[in-house]
Amino acid sequence: MDYISKFEELKSKNLSLDLTRGKPSADQLDLSNDLAAFRGNYFISDGVDIRNYGEIKGIDGCRELGSKILGCSKDYIWAGGNSSLSLMSQFLSFLFVEGNGTGPWSNKERVSILCPVPGYDRHFKLCETFGINMIPVSLTGEGPDLNEIQTLVETDESIRGIWCVPKYSNPTGEIYSSEVTEGLLEIFSNSKTKSIIFWDNAYAVHDLSDQTPLFDIFSLAKNNDCEDVVVEFGSTSKITFAGAGVGFIAMSELNQESFLPFYSALMIGPDKLNQARHVRFFQENDLQEHMRRHADIVKPKFDLVNNRLESMGLGAWTSPEGGYFILFESDIGMARNIISLAAELGLKLTPAGATHPYGIDQEDKFIRIAPTACSIEELDAAMDVFSCCVGLAYEQVRKV
Amino acid sequence: MDYISKFEELKSKNLSLDLTRGKPSADQLDLSNDLAAFRGNYFISDGVDIRNYGEIKGIDGCRELGSKILGCSKDYIWAGGNSSLSLMSQFLSFLFVEGNGTGPWSNKERVSILCPVPGYDRHFKLCETFGINMIPVSLTGEGPDLNEIQTLVETDESIRGIWCVPKYSNPTGEIYSSEVTEGLLEIFSNSKTKSIIFWDNAYAVHDLSDQTPLFDIFSLAKNNDCEDVVVEFGSTSKITFAGAGVGFIAMSELNQESFLPFYSALMIGPDKLNQARHVRFFQENDLQEHMRRHADIVKPKFDLVNNRLESMGLGAWTSPEGGYFILFESDIGMARNIISLAAELGLKLTPAGATHPYGIDQEDKFIRIAPTACSIEELDAAMDVFSCCVGLAYEQVRKV
Repeated sequence: MDYISKFEELKSKNLSLDLTRGKPSADQLDLSNDLAAFRGNYFISDGVDIRNYGEIKGIDGCRELGSKILGCSKDYIWAGGNSSLSLMSQFLSFLFVEGNGTGPWSNKERVSILCPVPGYDRHFKLCETFGINMIPVSLTGEGPDLNEIQTLVETDESIRGIWCVPKYSNPTGEIYSSEVTEGLLEIFSNSKTKSIIFWDNAYAVHDLSDQTPLFDIFSLAKNNDCEDVVVEFGSTSKITFAGAGVGFIAMSELNQESFLPFYSALMIGPDKLNQARHVRFFQENDLQEHMRRHADIVKPKFDLVNNRLESMGLGAWTSPEGGYFILFESDIGMARNIISLAAELGLKLTPAGATHPYGIDQEDKFIRIAPTACSIEELDAAMDVFSCCVGLAYEQVRKV
Repeated sequence: MDYISKFEELKSKNLSLDLTRGKPSADQLDLSNDLAAFRGNYFISDGVDIRNYGEIKGIDGCRELGSKILGCSKDYIWAGGNSSLSLMSQFLSFLFVEGNGTGPWSNKERVSILCPVPGYDRHFKLCETFGINMIPVSLTGEGPDLNEIQTLVETDESIRGIWCVPKYSNPTGEIYSSEVTEGLLEIFSNSKTKSIIFWDNAYAVHDLSDQTPLFDIFSLAKNNDCEDVVVEFGSTSKITFAGAGVGFIAMSELNQESFLPFYSALMIGPDKLNQARHVRFFQENDLQEHMRRHADIVKPKFDLVNNRLESMGLGAWTSPEGGYFILFESDIGMARNIISLAAELGLKLTPAGATHPYGIDQEDKFIRIAPTACSIEELDAAMDVFSCCVGLAYEQVRKV
């Protein structure tokens, strides 16, 4: 059937499908239902009544859990509320109000952060919100391009850091190599302005098959005596409940000392009951085994998308070994059209440009596909629509 | 026995007592233990899977609970995480970064907020953290002094708002009258600079006997067509679990519209599971009855402090009808000494000056007593120490 007929046929179905957000599906969430069902007295932890105020850095057991997930020492880790994004925003507020050694960022005429692209829209939104200038840098398949970064840092003194999603990067799915990471540490610890590597390790244990942990950036940094340049984030959002997990922030001792008074002004303590639930849940459930169960649900979806894209045979796409996204790359200038065609058929796709700072994908070719939230059947229907819209868009270009 | 002998006797006991923080006691927390024990499927609320991301304003039922507690319409209320202080800090971040109609507060040379004194140290700390200048204003017994405020607002254009704890004010225990509140609304809605009344209704339902609700400030404001001047806060921290409750922020439609994009950049959604637990808990437990049970535990402690202070007969003190504090007022220049004598005997008291901006109580006479956290027996022992130290301090002054 030609694409136009297929398009009309699909249109008549009045579909309502969504491949926009990297959300776990209901059956993934079901894996953690026991988390919400603890009974009995688990209110005392290390002699502290966790129902009450206090314990600003989180309870010990939960910091330990964070260290298992992020692969760094427990001493670096604070366990917070349900959102690592909140911790990022609180750390940015701190930089905005107090700065990191050279005065408040709010006093500076221009503060820039490097944003590897394609990247995570929520990082970009945070920067935009705090008035931080974003400078895109290319990704290489194993992290950002060090030469590009070196040149930028040497020529632009407004640069104060970089966003990184080091494992199964959102949305390219690539894993940073230790060489690239050491390069980043070297560049940013030697840069003229004090800088921060925002190390958002959101998919640290979110493997589809091989469960190889990422190296620990703090160990690398310690070897190079530059621990203070790193602030790491993570959470259980895509391990337990997306909306009711525990977020983590990890920092050197010095950074903890600087941040603590500010952070302590913002609240009296995190929800330690939810932290205790998580500790108990992972006493009863092995973390690796739990993530394997996630993979059992998620991998068939990634495979389905891959197979459908292969049989379509247009454009290029990633085949990540973990994380939440597949990145489709059309020919230049087609992404917007594909997304708008899909919308006509009732398939929501992440807006064109969402993968880039300020929503501007100059080449108009990247589309982020988030296959996890829907069922296999919905995903199959969505890929039907997607393939048709890509085909039609390519056909329209050929005809012009 | 004279005070010096008593002091030596108490010293030999090596006591360890604490009247510093307004924390609920363990038996108060026990009243809400069922909150942590729900089983079964309560994961769908209004068609939303509350385990997943989203619902930035909180779930409907919990916003309804907030409206019951704060006494305003549900439409004004967002339900957040476990801390109203966090919501305050996020709203201040918003003002700092975006401002309220006349540009970011961070760009202004000086931003001042009026602080009724004695007041809440956490409000002061927040202001200090964000570099906001604090101007103390007197309290009258039914809210701050309107004449003082009127004069200040007319002469100082840096003033952008006021902190208020309208019911059982921390630490004076007073209740704002509707006349004073209408006066505040009038002054701040007519001031040359756009201002905000930070209405921290932390003790809205925390009555010791009579459960008369406070008037709704939004209704008063609506009558005077100045709703946008008010931002209200509250929480269940001292209703259910201090560390794992739900915080609320309440605003006019216009303020919600302005704040929402900023707030949405800071996180993807609050912990809706904890919100649902609260909804369910208060379906099974009547809020008024629940607060009466709190009063049954708290009132004897307030009575004990009052009786002990009466039999001591030195200084002055408040006898609030609710809230968490009794405020002791010594003669001028004695508070610091009393607190340091108490420390010698192993009784921690809130540092002198904590009730005032920048920690400066010019007259050195206010001591905040928080009687709830300890047991009746500990409280009795603590008041033994306190009475002795006050007596000794008065004696020392007489001798000089």
